Amino acid sequence: MKPDLLVVGSIGFDSVKTPFGSVSRGIGGSGIYASLAARFFCKPALVGCIGTDFSHAFLSQLESVGINLDGLQSSPKPSLHWHAHYGFDVNEAVTDKVELNALEDLQPRIPDSFAGIEFVFLANENPQKQKKFVEAFSKRPKRVVADTMNHWIERQPTDVLHMVLVSDLVTMNEAEARQLFKTPQLLKAAQEILKLNSEFALIKKGENGAVLFSKHGFFAVPGYPLETIKDPTGCGDSFAGALTGFLANQNDFSARTLRKAMVTASAVASFNAEDFSSKRLLEITKKDIRNRVREFREIVRF
Amino acid sequence: MKPDLLVVGSIGFDSVKTPFGSVSRGIGGSGIYASLAARFFCKPALVGCIGTDFSHAFLSQLESVGINLDGLQSSPKPSLHWHAHYGFDVNEAVTDKVELNALEDLQPRIPDSFAGIEFVFLANENPQKQKKFVEAFSKRPKRVVADTMNHWIERQPTDVLHMVLVSDLVTMNEAEARQLFKTPQLLKAAQEILKLNSEFALIKKGENGAVLFSKHGFFAVPGYPLETIKDPTGCGDSFAGALTGFLANQNDFSARTLRKAMVTASAVASFNAEDFSSKRLLEITKKDIRNRVREFREIVRF
Repeated sequence: MKPDLLVVGSIGFDSVKTPFGSVSRGIGGSGIYASLAARFFCKPALVGCIGTDFSHAFLSQLESVGINLDGLQSSPKPSLHWHAHYGFDVNEAVTDKVELNALEDLQPRIPDSFAGIEFVFLANENPQKQKKFVEAFSKRPKRVVADTMNHWIERQPTDVLHMVLVSDLVTMNEAEARQLFKTPQLLKAAQEILKLNSEFALIKKGENGAVLFSKHGFFAVPGYPLETIKDPTGCGDSFAGALTGFLANQNDFSARTLRKAMVTASAVASFNAEDFSSKRLLEITKKDIRNRVREFREIVRF
Repeated sequence: MKPDLLVVGSIGFDSVKTPFGSVSRGIGGSGIYASLAARFFCKPALVGCIGTDFSHAFLSQLESVGINLDGLQSSPKPSLHWHAHYGFDVNEAVTDKVELNALEDLQPRIPDSFAGIEFVFLANENPQKQKKFVEAFSKRPKRVVADTMNHWIERQPTDVLHMVLVSDLVTMNEAEARQLFKTPQLLKAAQEILKLNSEFALIKKGENGAVLFSKHGFFAVPGYPLETIKDPTGCGDSFAGALTGFLANQNDFSARTLRKAMVTASAVASFNAEDFSSKRLLEITKKDIRNRVREFREIVRF
């Protein structure tokens, strides 16, 4: 079946310590989290670059849950390997080491069979490469959602601003938005995003949920009160993947649909934190997500 | 008219620098913020201790807006004077100096005419003194709401825990709750509060709103997206004052009423941050608050 969402992101290993345990070489990477989250809502295709040491059994598992891998690239190097730890504040990962490896070889190339895909999610990457992926489409996709991170904001702020300008929605977190627009006030940062040809400014707030600014009004979804948090790695990517998957499924980009997409994406991201790496995303069902979305309705009722 | 809420708190001056300006000797103190916020909903009486240098014109203004001062105490010392600044993260005040002065002379004494008041808010103070205020009532008030802060949690954690045990609701912020119960997980801290003879665990999250844990379900109110933030000093006290005032007015302590009270209190606290010291609390009207509560309904709708 033809995919209706293209996810471009990294594929590799996470070695992570949190206050609740640790994992060594867990399978992760933004592309994995985002596509696993998106597949509950649409038919995603994942474009990324694996290394020689990546698990073929896991690739089969991705395909078996409905993720198209026709655009997968491979490199003679080992796979990306991210080493990090979380302290008392689980909102903030401290990167200890990044071995980019195969990720360096990712080419902005899209199979011809993907022409006509209308929704694209570009996970955090060098903003110049993100832009090249948009340009790799013969016809610009209908909606481009992109993520970024402090690494790029510090090194290539102009390129990041340009990426905000060319994409429809950027899923920054609050520290990144404040940093990019040099303001302590989130609302001011959001207003700057809206000036960059964006109908919406979506800001992720980690365990405090996410907010949406636009001329259609302000929206806030709170964080879900997790009984168990083991590893927040990939929550931002799961959020963005589920969000874009939901939008692709609805084939709509209105404020109303975005609100629903944000709540649904928050539900999916909250599940992701319940276990290490992408383990929970492979266990949960659509029904689990629906139930949690229903809980969100109760959480904000007054 | 007989007051229906007793607010015990400090009265004095704030000298504060924020990224948006500064104020020198602005009138503040937890008792001022809390009673000014409560008076929109009920008839508060303020118990606190002023120094020789406090403004009598301001006391008249308090009375003119409906705050009973029959329990006001005075000291031969100057008034409390708090010096602080806020950095890029306006959620966190950095205290530069506290001149306790008159606050040291505050006696746990309540006029006989206040007997029978059913709702009490005890602003942040030495937990032993807070307890003495509860004991100063011949008959225990129906509902005691108390605040605390890191200062007391660091120095007298056992006394703070005891205060949680004897009060009906403690309005801690998230850092304080994590610190008191030594856990990075807010839910765990909330569960510890609930074990201490508390029906509800309310946690303030600064610009991220506030949350309520209880066996009746989890509730979250988001932060209000302020166009103008000038000075967050007193937001926590305004929140607690408005909350307790709302509860006193409804004479109810159910989960349903607490949810409404939290949204209303968030609205009042958000106004308070719009100008220095207690200036905005003296300008706004009930109608302004009602309109902002209505905005909160739109903010969480999906």
